[in-house]
Amino acid sequence: MREGRLVVVGGSAAGMSAAARAKRRRPEWEVVVLERGPHISYSACGLPYYISGEVKRPDELVVLTPERVRKERGIEALVRHEVVEVQPSRRLVIALDLETSQERAFSYDKLVLAMGGAPKVPEVPGVDLKWVFRVRDLQDGIGLQEYIERENPRRAVVVGGGYIGLEMADAFRRRGIHVTVVEQADQVLGMLDPDVAALVEEELARREIRVVKSAEMVRLEGDSEGRFCAVHLKDHVERYWADFALLAVGVQPEVELARSCGVAIGPTGAISVSPKMETNLPNVYAAGDCTEARHVVTGRPAYIPLGTTANKQGRVAGENAVGGFRVFRGVAGTAVVKVGDLEVARTGLSTKEAEEAGFQVVSKNIIARSRAGYYPGGYPLTVKVIAEKGSGRLLGAQLVGREGVALRVNVFAAALSARMTVEEVGQMDLAYAPPFSPVWDPILIAANEALKLVR
Amino acid sequence: MREGRLVVVGGSAAGMSAAARAKRRRPEWEVVVLERGPHISYSACGLPYYISGEVKRPDELVVLTPERVRKERGIEALVRHEVVEVQPSRRLVIALDLETSQERAFSYDKLVLAMGGAPKVPEVPGVDLKWVFRVRDLQDGIGLQEYIERENPRRAVVVGGGYIGLEMADAFRRRGIHVTVVEQADQVLGMLDPDVAALVEEELARREIRVVKSAEMVRLEGDSEGRFCAVHLKDHVERYWADFALLAVGVQPEVELARSCGVAIGPTGAISVSPKMETNLPNVYAAGDCTEARHVVTGRPAYIPLGTTANKQGRVAGENAVGGFRVFRGVAGTAVVKVGDLEVARTGLSTKEAEEAGFQVVSKNIIARSRAGYYPGGYPLTVKVIAEKGSGRLLGAQLVGREGVALRVNVFAAALSARMTVEEVGQMDLAYAPPFSPVWDPILIAANEALKLVR
Repeated sequence: MREGRLVVVGGSAAGMSAAARAKRRRPEWEVVVLERGPHISYSACGLPYYISGEVKRPDELVVLTPERVRKERGIEALVRHEVVEVQPSRRLVIALDLETSQERAFSYDKLVLAMGGAPKVPEVPGVDLKWVFRVRDLQDGIGLQEYIERENPRRAVVVGGGYIGLEMADAFRRRGIHVTVVEQADQVLGMLDPDVAALVEEELARREIRVVKSAEMVRLEGDSEGRFCAVHLKDHVERYWADFALLAVGVQPEVELARSCGVAIGPTGAISVSPKMETNLPNVYAAGDCTEARHVVTGRPAYIPLGTTANKQGRVAGENAVGGFRVFRGVAGTAVVKVGDLEVARTGLSTKEAEEAGFQVVSKNIIARSRAGYYPGGYPLTVKVIAEKGSGRLLGAQLVGREGVALRVNVFAAALSARMTVEEVGQMDLAYAPPFSPVWDPILIAANEALKLVR
Repeated sequence: MREGRLVVVGGSAAGMSAAARAKRRRPEWEVVVLERGPHISYSACGLPYYISGEVKRPDELVVLTPERVRKERGIEALVRHEVVEVQPSRRLVIALDLETSQERAFSYDKLVLAMGGAPKVPEVPGVDLKWVFRVRDLQDGIGLQEYIERENPRRAVVVGGGYIGLEMADAFRRRGIHVTVVEQADQVLGMLDPDVAALVEEELARREIRVVKSAEMVRLEGDSEGRFCAVHLKDHVERYWADFALLAVGVQPEVELARSCGVAIGPTGAISVSPKMETNLPNVYAAGDCTEARHVVTGRPAYIPLGTTANKQGRVAGENAVGGFRVFRGVAGTAVVKVGDLEVARTGLSTKEAEEAGFQVVSKNIIARSRAGYYPGGYPLTVKVIAEKGSGRLLGAQLVGREGVALRVNVFAAALSARMTVEEVGQMDLAYAPPFSPVWDPILIAANEALKLVR
């Protein structure tokens, strides 16, 4: 006996989390997921490791199939169904079945919008050439892998030096492909401070990944058969020849559907939501890469599309949609990326972000070892702490090193959630044993050094 | 031109931290450290790794020498000087120079007591036999290593299954020595919940380290030449034969000197101190393993002697002794130990400790992977979260696994410092990338599962 019907638009992290949570909480509800692509619930973050060969088969990245969610969870997940219209006044969703090209109408009691984000496409000629790739979804990854195996390319150009660009550049390099990364800004990983990003650039150089910075791409050139062959940069005489190009210039929220049905868009360009993940329309929730989130440091809306956040927001939306009560507490901008042998992580605000948010900033950069000095196998670890002058409030942290980075950044993330000062961070009772850290963990050293600058 | 004289009793972690901080803050002060042993500032925590052979030379464990601290920091560190009396009314310390057997008097303006802790000695016959070892200090470690190299022993009995007992047992095993651990309680690592300790016991079994639990030692037996040869346990017919024994039944604060000069001892048996590390006597501070500390969860005094805490308390004492202002924010009981291939960590209160402190406790034990499921090389990780029923306040956490344990426990430690609830912990914005964690970090999974039990 159905009590209500939840319709979810989008079958990725946020959508499937919402559906699963709703169904678990209220099994008597009917839950329908409408997904445009051929897959639900796959790990997009795993694509670079599939390309590199560390993950052997694409289906290893598929967490759930429509069959499984139907059978095991009682969720109806319809793939190849593109939602083309939402009629909030009639509580109706119109989807196009891409197999049959027929329109189907789904009525809903509650609706969760989880359309995700879409890779930005540079507005230059040539982006539609053959062998110009992007990695939006699993199909893109499979297509790229097939291309690599079939054509055995020797040279790649990666456009964009963000997380995905560098992960993909690294994956290509592991396959023996020569890589040039073309980055518009004057550093890779724009979410890092320049001095920290410089450490990543050193590692890229060590891996023989060429980086061209301050590079504005003006054109992708094709050969006579319409296949990509070179990138043209503004003010560069030289063309950058390669066998293929990967575009990874960032992600933007997919909001056309939401906008067209009257859902309010926030200052970041993504869907504006309450802490309960409600949109401005009754009975309509949103979650994941199409929405914005409150930043725990600034308290203001931010657009930081990441799978972890999508999962959490999806759960909150699903819970609330069927009558529960949960709030999403916001994002800290925590992220980690592996580049060559380096772990690179950040959380909170960068120096630039903190200044733009109106903080008076102090920062301190330290190098300490990942293990006790006398214990074999440790590595130097760079930790940068960003704090507010005067109050000493922790604003952000960035870490780079060969081990112990990814998990250490989480301690700073916890401290940001709790609005700790660097004085408090510097006194935390962290675990110590020689194989795992020096007696003063690099976290504590960095916080205590930053403390000296605060007053 | 000296403005004052700081005398520090004890040249280990707390004492040297106090001396260094005081001198740095007020270089015009004279700072004198009186240390009974022949070394200052060595890493006692590194001894098991010296015994195992992972650290080659004992001097690698020596952080500072008296010569270096004199030259580089202007601190007078006198080794082989045992303080035998403190006269607070005259602000005088009497030390016995163990080389010359002469008494020397040192006047002070401020005094820091940092005598440390002493290994407990079981009150049974035979503890003074030859080849019965303990590891209080570097000399003990050197003596034990010399014995092992000279005598090439095949079998060891370790009395005590705490951190040090297990680290040493593991070190012996790495040297090819057969080890029996004799533990009074019905589990090893009494600071863990029994179900978590059981995982450690499985690893010990896998490493072929025998553990005899609920074992009350009644006697150490010697051969005709006064050399240890066996342990006798109550209600055990069998004797436990071995070539040598190591006693590691815990540490107690060294407080005789303090008590004799009128320094107040707290409910734990260690020196009672204010957050500024002041004792009840004017101008007298205390720090390190001879003092107690406020527990951040219970708010009550606790005795958890660890090097990390000693360093922090020492800094606070040194800062305040020369006119600064710092407070020590307390301990969370965070600790990590490596046993075989396992990392074992805990923070906050165990279930038993929480119940004894008057909390109504819920707990949840989960197993999750240390990396994304499809990413090669991950391991299962056990995370136990202990929370207060009703409020959901995080009370403690315990983790066991082959990787990613030592650093993850610190996230819980941070959350304890901030008095977070499991709901807040479960929403933290933790870093995710497939090589480092699943999209839901085990921390988040455990906290969210515990949340379900809270109400």
